[in-house]
Amino acid sequence: MKNNIKVVIWGFGAMGSGMANMLLSKKGVDIVGVCDRNSARVNRDMYEVLGIDRVERKEVKIINDIETIISNTQPDIVLLATDSFTRNAFPKIKMLLEKGINVISTAEEMAYPKAQEPELTKELDEIARKNGVTVLGTGINPGLIMDLLVVVLTGAMVDVESVLAKRVNSLSPFGKAVMEEQGVGITVDQFNKGVSDGSLAGHVGFAESINMIADAIGWKVDNPILQTQKPIVSNVFRKTKYVEVESGNVAGCAMEGYGYVDGEMKIHMVHPQQVEPELEGTNTGDYIELKGSPEINMQIKPEVDGGLGTIAMCVNMIPHVINSKPGLKTMLDLPVPRAIMGDMRDMID
Amino acid sequence: MKNNIKVVIWGFGAMGSGMANMLLSKKGVDIVGVCDRNSARVNRDMYEVLGIDRVERKEVKIINDIETIISNTQPDIVLLATDSFTRNAFPKIKMLLEKGINVISTAEEMAYPKAQEPELTKELDEIARKNGVTVLGTGINPGLIMDLLVVVLTGAMVDVESVLAKRVNSLSPFGKAVMEEQGVGITVDQFNKGVSDGSLAGHVGFAESINMIADAIGWKVDNPILQTQKPIVSNVFRKTKYVEVESGNVAGCAMEGYGYVDGEMKIHMVHPQQVEPELEGTNTGDYIELKGSPEINMQIKPEVDGGLGTIAMCVNMIPHVINSKPGLKTMLDLPVPRAIMGDMRDMID
Repeated sequence: MKNNIKVVIWGFGAMGSGMANMLLSKKGVDIVGVCDRNSARVNRDMYEVLGIDRVERKEVKIINDIETIISNTQPDIVLLATDSFTRNAFPKIKMLLEKGINVISTAEEMAYPKAQEPELTKELDEIARKNGVTVLGTGINPGLIMDLLVVVLTGAMVDVESVLAKRVNSLSPFGKAVMEEQGVGITVDQFNKGVSDGSLAGHVGFAESINMIADAIGWKVDNPILQTQKPIVSNVFRKTKYVEVESGNVAGCAMEGYGYVDGEMKIHMVHPQQVEPELEGTNTGDYIELKGSPEINMQIKPEVDGGLGTIAMCVNMIPHVINSKPGLKTMLDLPVPRAIMGDMRDMID
Repeated sequence: MKNNIKVVIWGFGAMGSGMANMLLSKKGVDIVGVCDRNSARVNRDMYEVLGIDRVERKEVKIINDIETIISNTQPDIVLLATDSFTRNAFPKIKMLLEKGINVISTAEEMAYPKAQEPELTKELDEIARKNGVTVLGTGINPGLIMDLLVVVLTGAMVDVESVLAKRVNSLSPFGKAVMEEQGVGITVDQFNKGVSDGSLAGHVGFAESINMIADAIGWKVDNPILQTQKPIVSNVFRKTKYVEVESGNVAGCAMEGYGYVDGEMKIHMVHPQQVEPELEGTNTGDYIELKGSPEINMQIKPEVDGGLGTIAMCVNMIPHVINSKPGLKTMLDLPVPRAIMGDMRDMID
């Protein structure tokens, strides 16, 4: 019998701790270490932080020292849930690859890093190859709903004329960090100022999703990718566990992205995200409209849950990353994602 | 510059000729030979049969001698569109692999041949490996809509409780062979007799789709797969280019398949196919309902066109098959399918 797969989680916020919960429900895999810098969690046992009875399992102490964790545990893979941007994740990924450890990153830009960071992408690919390991960026979006799923559906097409990917989702389940990134609860003036000074990131991923689709099907898309970012102004009072939105203030952020090929807009992304969308009659869902031959109109209603979806994508790709040829890989390079309902060891070649 | 990819098409019915039309619209690929046994087509030029102006392209004479075609053209790959069952396609695939030629088969059972033909699957895998080439079975269904697409969507799930895949499609575009396989136009008595003596195949692929999904996500499914096959009795007169259905006779074939895991029905396939479904208010579409966490409810309306979809899947997988490690592969093993809008040579590693 093979040994259990050894996983380290780096970053124990909503995503990292969600991955821990998921991994604890799976067979053939162990969480051998957790790295986090949040003082509320450091030096505590992972099970205690998760609110789970440890039973007979070994304690996993959360510490803020990845080097010690790696040398003590020699994991097969690290799930890195600390960043949105390739540039910020880069030194962490580099260090892990140089120690011969596979990496899955939740950083949105890492889903298709060559879109905005071709130099860093090349460097990571070389380091990974040299050390015989693999790095993958994934998540629900970018990673699946507005890109990989589009690509899969084009597989049934003789000819593609244009792509529309639309994700209308609720931000209600998300915490304070996401509210701040998206501008939920602030005034319209504050929102517009945040957009113009670049402090409001909004959704990160259009450049990645659009380049992924274009490269996959062989369109030469113009870069940089154009995008717009507008406030969704509430006409009613909205309230979640983490935020309150006065009428007239910002309930969310509506973004659109545009991929031009030979002067023609071929790939259109529409992604309005807000808290409590149903209060003003917005039905959430994921929509893909592919013009061409044959035409394909897909919908998923309501939208695939963003939090659980990202957690699942990262955990479910573990076997594919371990099995992969060395290098920096994207979802285009690996076999299709899939749930893991059996023993994870059975999926390792 | 790399040479164009050289393709031979074996079987020039609706699927084979459709693949030819598609290939002629693509860059970086040539059809170098066509094998067919139909006397209406043999010894004629492919372009003439397709009704396409050959312009300056070289004639491609359709002949009924695959060995001569292979030795004269040395293709990179053969698209084999002659069979539904692995057992019937087996000697053809074996011969091609032994000559060092990659193969894509439209045979429904070949989409996941180990479901019903584990011995032949093993043999083909060994022959392919020994000769350094790859064989893949694919199509719209099995191949994508009721299996691979289900698998992809489970990639966003932490936990899967059950799978429902439903494809409600029109048979109106299809020709005489499909009408006979499905029992369209005959009486209910004739239909029931055809089901009991095994002469009415109906949809071929539930065993393949259900085993593909189960194996992908790690469920141990009971085999053989149970399925039911019932007539769709028309209450009105229906008519297509190829068939007439009197009121009270059979307009199509409704099949269901059931995948049991540990005594529980976990994978349910529902697939009613009929001519002119809208005459009695049936809306066609593809539906996937995944229970678990998170739940995912997908629909594609109308259904992805079966003819174009199969043609596209086979052609679009050519680069993945050429790039693959040797052996018998399924859609689970290879990177995701995708349309080919650029030069096919750019997709070859």
